[in-house]
Amino acid sequence: MSGWQYDVLGLGNAIVDVIARAEDDFLRRENLNKGGMMLIDEARALSLYETMGSGTVISGGSAANTIVGLASFGAKAAFIGKVRADDTGHAFSHDIRAMGVHFPTAPAKDGPSTARCLVLVTPDGERTMNTYLGACQNLTSDDVDEATVQASAITYLEGYLWDPPAAKQAFVKAATIAHAAGRKVALTLSDSFCVDRYRDEFLDLIRKKTVDIVFANQHELRSLYQTSDFATAINALREEDLLGVVTCSEDGSMVVTREETHAIAAFPIEKLVDTTGAGDLFAAGFLAGLTRSADYVTCARLGGLAAAEVIQHYGARPECSLRDLAAQVGLG
Amino acid sequence: MSGWQYDVLGLGNAIVDVIARAEDDFLRRENLNKGGMMLIDEARALSLYETMGSGTVISGGSAANTIVGLASFGAKAAFIGKVRADDTGHAFSHDIRAMGVHFPTAPAKDGPSTARCLVLVTPDGERTMNTYLGACQNLTSDDVDEATVQASAITYLEGYLWDPPAAKQAFVKAATIAHAAGRKVALTLSDSFCVDRYRDEFLDLIRKKTVDIVFANQHELRSLYQTSDFATAINALREEDLLGVVTCSEDGSMVVTREETHAIAAFPIEKLVDTTGAGDLFAAGFLAGLTRSADYVTCARLGGLAAAEVIQHYGARPECSLRDLAAQVGLG
Repeated sequence: MSGWQYDVLGLGNAIVDVIARAEDDFLRRENLNKGGMMLIDEARALSLYETMGSGTVISGGSAANTIVGLASFGAKAAFIGKVRADDTGHAFSHDIRAMGVHFPTAPAKDGPSTARCLVLVTPDGERTMNTYLGACQNLTSDDVDEATVQASAITYLEGYLWDPPAAKQAFVKAATIAHAAGRKVALTLSDSFCVDRYRDEFLDLIRKKTVDIVFANQHELRSLYQTSDFATAINALREEDLLGVVTCSEDGSMVVTREETHAIAAFPIEKLVDTTGAGDLFAAGFLAGLTRSADYVTCARLGGLAAAEVIQHYGARPECSLRDLAAQVGLG
Repeated sequence: MSGWQYDVLGLGNAIVDVIARAEDDFLRRENLNKGGMMLIDEARALSLYETMGSGTVISGGSAANTIVGLASFGAKAAFIGKVRADDTGHAFSHDIRAMGVHFPTAPAKDGPSTARCLVLVTPDGERTMNTYLGACQNLTSDDVDEATVQASAITYLEGYLWDPPAAKQAFVKAATIAHAAGRKVALTLSDSFCVDRYRDEFLDLIRKKTVDIVFANQHELRSLYQTSDFATAINALREEDLLGVVTCSEDGSMVVTREETHAIAAFPIEKLVDTTGAGDLFAAGFLAGLTRSADYVTCARLGGLAAAEVIQHYGARPECSLRDLAAQVGLG
């Protein structure tokens, strides 16, 4: 594998989050699946916004959060995702570029507005997401910048890309270019309902070696293998013969390959505020370690550190330098 | 004084904050006065936004923050301020109404866009504000809804209203209606540079009894009386024969009338994150106490409690119910 310009390229939905606190009663009244991600249309986005509380607006998007986390660790990072040329899209573009991320995707000049995710955070810190995909539906293979993929050691793809119809071609194109250039491809399963929607296709990506690294949480993994037993799911993942990284909330994480299995404790926190971005930032820390050839246990510790930072405040983007944070705890 | 519908009506600039972390070096390079509020035009707002870091967008505005704080304490609150009918203005209106605040001001259909304040927070937690007033410049006397003023026990006015040219007439009109209805009028001096700009007019408001209650921090008070000696400034305030409330950061606050002077300790905090809104939320707590006839010391403690909450996270709006918080510490 020759030298590379970017440690990680992310491909994902370009979304701005509107975060509000909500009581469990509100979720029940609005028929929302607590902890999940629901796709909504523009009319529903407007009506839900009217009924929800005062919002904090922070750029989001699963793979975009991971890429910003990587940049915060000091990695060289790039992102491909579609916004529209509107105020919200301008904010998304500003925020990711302000973190030093290369973001070559041209904004859509017309069509649906930039995607927004209405995130409701209940008193227990759990987040429930309602996503209006908007301009993300206009991401196509044409947006996959071949040079950027070739120049990236790892291309990281979010499972949510299976939702906007044209994006899965972009996903497969990116994976094909990456492998042809001798690079690695990583996939996050994104959400257990997302796995429900696309189980066979995700298994196909794994078994046809379209991806080399898979990130999942315990719910997504059980959904993937349609089992309620976590050990059964882990064993099934081991048989896939790739690098599997499984997060288990406060129980930490597991790294699974055919040869080795490691369980790593979660990083301690003072107060859980908002779980939004926990998985995204875990992936950021893990990949930050991987790109500097750390061992898997160190990678998982870096992931746990980044996840711990992001769940102690609102929003899915780090509020401090993760590189400095890693240095402070002896993981720098 | 007859019964009232609103405990407090706020009149102020309707602003949405864009908050980013910044190093002290950045402030120096951009020629910004640390800790102050600088007025900027739209071109400067755009260019500063381009150079600043990733932003968190939260509704702000000094008096608006105070009013939202009052609502969080369970008080009945109203607000008058001007936005434009654009996305940012829609967010401001949504956020203040979502807190249960009565907000009768019609948005401007054209003209400058909704006001934005670019807030730079340095590692020491100090905030430096750069305000593009935009649509706030279109607030006029016509926006002062007579019925709302008459129905409010206290009308609370921000000194920043002296900046947009037509707003000071709105300010004076509101004070006149309030007094004619037997209500009280409060003023916050807003910022020491603001006091520098309008010292004689502010002293005039105080000495002509246009206002009954004055909020200031120690810098604003020293600027008002052009003295470097805090005791001299406090003595001058005492001679004005009104209710003076002076905040002194970590040294707590003082309540000053001609008859009595109280010094109240600050509420302890775990970690200073962002001082934005400290004064606004102190005023919210103090007024929340006043509207339920608490003694001045209790009012100041409620102010300190609300300020302590808001400086431990980014943004100038409370992240929890201040009523619940007050109950938890025995001030409910």
